[in-house]
Amino acid sequence: MQMYDLIMKKRNGGVLNRDEIDFFINGYTKGEIPDYQVSALMMAIFFRGMNTEETVDLTMAMAHSGEVLDLKDISGIKCDKHSTGGVGDKTTLSLIPMVVSCGCKVAKMSGRGLGHTGGTIDKLESFPGFSTSISDKQFIDQVRNIGVSVMGQTVDLAPADKKLYALRDVTATVDNMSLIASSIMSKKLASGADAIVLDVKCGSGAFMKNLDDAKALAKAMTDIGKGAGRRTKAVISDMDQPLGRAVGNAIEVREAIETLKGNGPDDFTRLCMELGSRMLIMSDVCDNLDDAKVMLEDSIKDGRALDTLARFVKAQGGDESYVYDPSKLKVADRVTEVKAKCDGYVSHIECDEIGMVSLTLGGGRVTKESEIDLSVGLILEKKVGDRVKTGDVLARIYASDPEKESAALQRFEGTYEISESAPEQRDIIIDSIE
Amino acid sequence: MQMYDLIMKKRNGGVLNRDEIDFFINGYTKGEIPDYQVSALMMAIFFRGMNTEETVDLTMAMAHSGEVLDLKDISGIKCDKHSTGGVGDKTTLSLIPMVVSCGCKVAKMSGRGLGHTGGTIDKLESFPGFSTSISDKQFIDQVRNIGVSVMGQTVDLAPADKKLYALRDVTATVDNMSLIASSIMSKKLASGADAIVLDVKCGSGAFMKNLDDAKALAKAMTDIGKGAGRRTKAVISDMDQPLGRAVGNAIEVREAIETLKGNGPDDFTRLCMELGSRMLIMSDVCDNLDDAKVMLEDSIKDGRALDTLARFVKAQGGDESYVYDPSKLKVADRVTEVKAKCDGYVSHIECDEIGMVSLTLGGGRVTKESEIDLSVGLILEKKVGDRVKTGDVLARIYASDPEKESAALQRFEGTYEISESAPEQRDIIIDSIE
Repeated sequence: MQMYDLIMKKRNGGVLNRDEIDFFINGYTKGEIPDYQVSALMMAIFFRGMNTEETVDLTMAMAHSGEVLDLKDISGIKCDKHSTGGVGDKTTLSLIPMVVSCGCKVAKMSGRGLGHTGGTIDKLESFPGFSTSISDKQFIDQVRNIGVSVMGQTVDLAPADKKLYALRDVTATVDNMSLIASSIMSKKLASGADAIVLDVKCGSGAFMKNLDDAKALAKAMTDIGKGAGRRTKAVISDMDQPLGRAVGNAIEVREAIETLKGNGPDDFTRLCMELGSRMLIMSDVCDNLDDAKVMLEDSIKDGRALDTLARFVKAQGGDESYVYDPSKLKVADRVTEVKAKCDGYVSHIECDEIGMVSLTLGGGRVTKESEIDLSVGLILEKKVGDRVKTGDVLARIYASDPEKESAALQRFEGTYEISESAPEQRDIIIDSIE
Repeated sequence: MQMYDLIMKKRNGGVLNRDEIDFFINGYTKGEIPDYQVSALMMAIFFRGMNTEETVDLTMAMAHSGEVLDLKDISGIKCDKHSTGGVGDKTTLSLIPMVVSCGCKVAKMSGRGLGHTGGTIDKLESFPGFSTSISDKQFIDQVRNIGVSVMGQTVDLAPADKKLYALRDVTATVDNMSLIASSIMSKKLASGADAIVLDVKCGSGAFMKNLDDAKALAKAMTDIGKGAGRRTKAVISDMDQPLGRAVGNAIEVREAIETLKGNGPDDFTRLCMELGSRMLIMSDVCDNLDDAKVMLEDSIKDGRALDTLARFVKAQGGDESYVYDPSKLKVADRVTEVKAKCDGYVSHIECDEIGMVSLTLGGGRVTKESEIDLSVGLILEKKVGDRVKTGDVLARIYASDPEKESAALQRFEGTYEISESAPEQRDIIIDSIE
């Protein structure tokens, strides 16, 4: 088999079979197939696309290019959630305690990543002592004992994806739905979950800016999951404004805890319910969305979800007292209120720019080596559709450094649009693929 | 400027400007832009194409990526001819003496290349003592003295093209008309000619198998030539069967000499007239095709063309007596006659396979290092449209090695198709771009 023939076949509109895809991924992972042939193939795929079977085969080949997590020592269905990412996305922190308290099992491998704020691991580290550097045995034992564990990504999951993504990133071949979907799903499949709920964000603050793209990505990812024999559902959720009110790290953890106490923002609570109810169904905990939602609501009402978070934090070395007294979570003390300059309705919030405000404050990573300031961030007091009067507080900005604060305030300018009439309300849940 | 942005622009259907193309070619030649970005761009160009301006800019950038031959010390118009290659193509050997004897000036840089037979230089070396290893001064002086000189390609002409072609060759990005045309023309432009006549071959023995492709290539190349300020014309000629009757090296030289004596095959003679008359017009020797053809015919009738070949051979150290007695040119003495097995008309000759017979005999190069046997080859006694009877000689095969002879005879099997009715006659000249 020759890589040249694969490029030619795809270039001419052909379909690559599993052997050909395995040959390409294995050869590329081993360094036997050069970058210049792979980038030509990626560009041919950009123009010609891949069908579902090719996309599944590519994903499986990448998932098996390195270590694949073996969760067979945990009985029952292991469930996972993945978000395509957005601003203020603290979903994992609330969602997992909720579903685990209802009987789901979550064995999650998580990364730090780059972005406006830290990843799930960074946010969890707001609890003093919390560590994700745990052994495989501890990881599995903990899921068996308390239903949940989060491990830092120590093993080399899907190295082919890592190598391929880096190449696509510099050859303008990222924007293909099959390639995007297979990149995400290869890591999920290698992480060993039996059931996966996907939160596909859509809007100005998301990777997918419009609904058609978000739907296509959701469809591509669920097709892969199902093609790989995993239970897979997707929810398309709004990311045209930040999720909830808090954007940062400790500040988001506080909001996640408030949500577990029933005091969360409506949009965020609703998203957790929608994702969580699907996780319960996929885990065979119940068999319909209505029952699932009642179970999740009960887990909040009777405090089980909060207790689960505390148990989880404690099991991984963190100080559980912070769960019950989130005011202990350190938040920066330089607070600036940004106020409305006119009367009207919030018609738009420049979502990406709000993320950049957090990054400017030091709350996110620019490079892998960046240190994150967990204490900074912002709270949006007004969201799209809210009525405001001149002088009302739109947002509170929490900074720990005057220079960064000043830069962040400058960046904040113009993120809010205020109009005379109320904008059309948009539900956080846009669509779903069951 | 970033290579990434160029790839993205072309991928999305944009047009690259001259600065961008210069940036890419300069950076690639210097090794500052990696292969994997260039192959992605090539694949994007395969799908999106390039317009005439982009193609001219790319060609100019490649032509200027290395040394550009300076022919300004030769007064008047310097004319060149390029063929896209085929089987039995000895055109340069007859054409150049004809046009030079009429007043054209030809300063030609030539390569050896790979193929069924040797290149022009190999064929010229059939004259004992002939050398193309001459100095720049000798090269220019000779054109001034006798109107013609052929130099082996010693300098690094269009190194960007060399590098780019090698990359395209392994990434399935060769088959794009703009890229093919710019690759050919970059070397022609770097060779310094003011006027270029292009012989674009079309048919089973050519790179362009069908007329649409041949026309597109001819158009792309003439557009480049004109865009670069050179007088450029193209003739599309038939390569569905070998050109003339001789295929080999010394054997083709003999046929070329016979043609200069007025005894050449009709198709080959006609092609030389068509190409030559255009060269006379482009060189301002005359102003219409009819006059030009009369001049060329006269150059044969009165022996001036043959004398010019002799002068040229002598000037480059060759034995001119071979020109006047071509039987002295060494041809292999193992001769096999292949005979017709039935009555009818020759309806098709598998042109590529006839080339492979020559290669099998040792008449061509498989790798750059291959030694060519100048004495071997074949003579086609019957061509398409000829009537044959059982036992008539179709071809004579000249071999110097019994094993190669046997392999060549096997390869020859099935190259001739004989049908009951006469096939439609096809003119050697299919079309032209003036």
